[in-house]
Amino acid sequence: MDQSAELPISRFPVPALADMPADIRERLLAVQEKSGFIPNVFLVLAHRPDEFRAFLAYHDALMEKPGNLTKAEREMIVVATSNVNQCQYCVIAHGAILRVRAKNPLVADQVAVNYRKADITPRQKAMIDFAMKVALAAYSVGEDDFAILSDHGFDQEDMWDIAAISGFFGMSNRLANVTSMRPNEEFYTIGR
Amino acid sequence: MDQSAELPISRFPVPALADMPADIRERLLAVQEKSGFIPNVFLVLAHRPDEFRAFLAYHDALMEKPGNLTKAEREMIVVATSNVNQCQYCVIAHGAILRVRAKNPLVADQVAVNYRKADITPRQKAMIDFAMKVALAAYSVGEDDFAILSDHGFDQEDMWDIAAISGFFGMSNRLANVTSMRPNEEFYTIGR
Amino acid sequence: MDQSAELPISRFPVPALADMPADIRERLLAVQEKSGFIPNVFLVLAHRPDEFRAFLAYHDALMEKPGNLTKAEREMIVVATSNVNQCQYCVIAHGAILRVRAKNPLVADQVAVNYRKADITPRQKAMIDFAMKVALAAYSVGEDDFAILSDHGFDQEDMWDIAAISGFFGMSNRLANVTSMRPNEEFYTIGR
Amino acid sequence: MDQSAELPISRFPVPALADMPADIRERLLAVQEKSGFIPNVFLVLAHRPDEFRAFLAYHDALMEKPGNLTKAEREMIVVATSNVNQCQYCVIAHGAILRVRAKNPLVADQVAVNYRKADITPRQKAMIDFAMKVALAAYSVGEDDFAILSDHGFDQEDMWDIAAISGFFGMSNRLANVTSMRPNEEFYTIGR
Amino acid sequence: MDQSAELPISRFPVPALADMPADIRERLLAVQEKSGFIPNVFLVLAHRPDEFRAFLAYHDALMEKPGNLTKAEREMIVVATSNVNQCQYCVIAHGAILRVRAKNPLVADQVAVNYRKADITPRQKAMIDFAMKVALAAYSVGEDDFAILSDHGFDQEDMWDIAAISGFFGMSNRLANVTSMRPNEEFYTIGR
Amino acid sequence: MDQSAELPISRFPVPALADMPADIRERLLAVQEKSGFIPNVFLVLAHRPDEFRAFLAYHDALMEKPGNLTKAEREMIVVATSNVNQCQYCVIAHGAILRVRAKNPLVADQVAVNYRKADITPRQKAMIDFAMKVALAAYSVGEDDFAILSDHGFDQEDMWDIAAISGFFGMSNRLANVTSMRPNEEFYTIGR
Repeated sequence: MDQSAELPISRFPVPALADMPADIRERLLAVQEKSGFIPNVFLVLAHRPDEFRAFLAYHDALMEKPGNLTKAEREMIVVATSNVNQCQYCVIAHGAILRVRAKNPLVADQVAVNYRKADITPRQKAMIDFAMKVALAAYSVGEDDFAILSDHGFDQEDMWDIAAISGFFGMSNRLANVTSMRPNEEFYTIGR
Repeated sequence: MDQSAELPISRFPVPALADMPADIRERLLAVQEKSGFIPNVFLVLAHRPDEFRAFLAYHDALMEKPGNLTKAEREMIVVATSNVNQCQYCVIAHGAILRVRAKNPLVADQVAVNYRKADITPRQKAMIDFAMKVALAAYSVGEDDFAILSDHGFDQEDMWDIAAISGFFGMSNRLANVTSMRPNEEFYTIGR
Repeated sequence: MDQSAELPISRFPVPALADMPADIRERLLAVQEKSGFIPNVFLVLAHRPDEFRAFLAYHDALMEKPGNLTKAEREMIVVATSNVNQCQYCVIAHGAILRVRAKNPLVADQVAVNYRKADITPRQKAMIDFAMKVALAAYSVGEDDFAILSDHGFDQEDMWDIAAISGFFGMSNRLANVTSMRPNEEFYTIGR
Repeated sequence: MDQSAELPISRFPVPALADMPADIRERLLAVQEKSGFIPNVFLVLAHRPDEFRAFLAYHDALMEKPGNLTKAEREMIVVATSNVNQCQYCVIAHGAILRVRAKNPLVADQVAVNYRKADITPRQKAMIDFAMKVALAAYSVGEDDFAILSDHGFDQEDMWDIAAISGFFGMSNRLANVTSMRPNEEFYTIGR
Repeated sequence: MDQSAELPISRFPVPALADMPADIRERLLAVQEKSGFIPNVFLVLAHRPDEFRAFLAYHDALMEKPGNLTKAEREMIVVATSNVNQCQYCVIAHGAILRVRAKNPLVADQVAVNYRKADITPRQKAMIDFAMKVALAAYSVGEDDFAILSDHGFDQEDMWDIAAISGFFGMSNRLANVTSMRPNEEFYTIGR
Repeated sequence: MDQSAELPISRFPVPALADMPADIRERLLAVQEKSGFIPNVFLVLAHRPDEFRAFLAYHDALMEKPGNLTKAEREMIVVATSNVNQCQYCVIAHGAILRVRAKNPLVADQVAVNYRKADITPRQKAMIDFAMKVALAAYSVGEDDFAILSDHGFDQEDMWDIAAISGFFGMSNRLANVTSMRPNEEFYTIGR
């Protein structure tokens, strides 16, 4: 694995920590302090400080906010939609987070490949069905789709959350694919 | 048209100006002052203040930043990808902006429906080809695609810009479709 | 716009009026007399007089015949299916006609991009749902689809009309794309 | 087979010969005289006399006109595109015509299922490649596609012919599927 | 047809009968004895004796086993799914077998092009609907699909059979396409 | 994890070891002896002894045979195509085998989600490109595709191997999805 440590994490320039704006460097150091490493998405996006700040603010607004969706459920949405978008970074990194959030070492791989066969509830399958439709054919989302969510106990705010998470990570998936963003090796084993 | 003024602009709650956080209300009033009306995207997203702020910050980071892509070219990317995503709000609103930016009353409708037949340069067609691939199959973007952009004189930063604009509006398209965001009537005629 | 007046309207030869068969020239002059200009589809297809005559006869048989579908509704079918087929000429030209027929400056752009969000009736949405299925997957049209139309009050003849209009303009969309048929500038503003 | 003679040939009304306009009845009787039977497409479309006349005129303008494409080659286009459109009537009826035109009992079934593996020339495969792109993605047809045809010796008029035949039968495929048009039993064995 | 007898039946090497392992040669001679010719699939796959044996064993396990599906019904599954997979060998060879098994000269061509319009029972259409979903989107097969089969009187073992036949011939279709496996001329007329 | 041990491994009946034919039981016990557990695919397919035997024989003929493709490379094909087919069992089980064969804990997750970004050689990417085309559009595989493989040093036998592995696991993916075959928990951590 030594040589992989040398592999590029982006096909675009990646700034050194010392060259980053102070607020970004501090955020990265705080993450490193907490997690033991800096997820590559931070380093890759730091090439564009304004976009970095907006991306992180948006991410936190969706993933850290209070709400009925558990944090594990939000990560399920990320993992399932990212796999259909074939985003290596997002499936591997958010797979790790999902394992931790769900305290379940199996669920991330299950949800990534085919959530319909995963050890999740019917309510969670309905949630991902909706997120997948947003990812693949949002133009055809209609009241019938909202009604299914409602039947499973989701309210208006949950519906917005599911759609917004699917949409935001659809953007993230595209950025990660275009930059050839490389997942940190740490993610592969976290939570297994 | 009177009755359409009464049609909902979102299937989710829309806050009154008086109920918005002050920073958001001020931004909306500034837009209204400048444009003569408040684009509905501001009102619809104001339902979620944190997401509103992140969305606008991200938007401005991509659309207002300096760079080799002209503002009209950035709008071309938005209009073409939004139509293939069948996003009514984005095609109609950004079509208006494109007409203004390009000082050309025809180009927005041309680019929306089939940019390959639009009155734009081969370089611009290559730019949109790339943006469309990011929108539809970002997982398969590779060095061959970057080489075509390079042949047309785009540099690394331009490539990031094209991809990021396509990705960001892919998210925006999904939000607009899920919220049934209604385009303001003003957009239909601006710049014609 | 001066220079665009010089842009080719077809990648195939376009005959001069003086070189056309008399019946075709007369039809074109009559159109010019009535509309103030000759839509380019007439000039492009005049390259093939027999096909021109058959095309126009078919067009009129579907679009001018009596029936329960209003003329505006027939144009809605054209506009929605032409956009999914990415036919620039048909969306722009028939968008103009739709605005006139519907006496509504907004409906054409709405229907083109995403008819599901347009200011049209549920009956009209069901009509376009059917037309889109004919355009995209006619092999799977079955009695369930006819039953939905019937529930919305469409009779057998209406069903044929919807299917035939979708099919005819599917052909027209393909011809316009292959010939790079250019929309006349007049269409962009008619009915706005 | 007796019972199949009783099966409906259309899900829409089919007029009796006696009830048809004289010109249509005469055309049908002439066909019957020549071929020994009346292909069901004539009977099904006779429900709409004006469309019948336009359809036949268009058909003859494309399939009977002089030109570089042989009659067998025109039928190859019909058979290949009709199969990808899953049109039972067109594959079976035009398969019969192709066998006769090509004086080859094998070629129709080969071209229908996968023309890339058929006993046809590379030039004919290029012709069908183009016709298939017109059928499936006409919006993306561009000069590269025309150049391939040119390399195989096709001229401008041939290119129009290929596109127009693909487009016309795309319409015909949709009509046949929506009407559940039934192929005459005679077609199954002609030319084998 | 003489020259076609000389056309290759595979783009890979085809062993002479004399060079085949004895068990395979004997099986081929037995087939020739019974059918009057050796279907090319046997000769093409004989290039790989172990795969030949496994392929035939699997084929017979699915197609010769007792069960509620008639032999004709099993062939319907093969013919319909092979056409959507554009496998020339499988449609033509199994079309012949279907005509014989069903004692019906029309059904194979009907089922190949569009089984929804074929002279088969609603139960058989449901069977092919399921087989097509297995061929095209097996990941989304769920209890709703099994329930439809159950409503038509299929039991658990029938469901497995339908899925396994669709899956096995999906493999066979891929092999035939990659090897450019050529259908024997005999198949074109058997059972007509 | 205790409760997941109770979850069904198939939606079809699974025989007890004691009820299996002796040859199958012995094979399973041998696998258990060697691996420490019985992969569920063996138990699920044991419901159909003849299919079990053919499946295993085919599997071994492709995966255990000598040849230029390494065992790790064969597993790469399985993992990449199984993910695009959304087959949970195959991605998870063969991901484990790939990690072991490649002596690389990262490669399986990388190849599963987007092999174009994996730590593999250009030759291996070309191999998977071909395998993916066989999985998704085998009808269009042609000499251009074989030429690319040849440029990367693959010979005729390698080409057959790649296609056959893709085809065989395409069948396996469909069976696993239809049976809701559950991956053993052991697979998730093997080789990490």
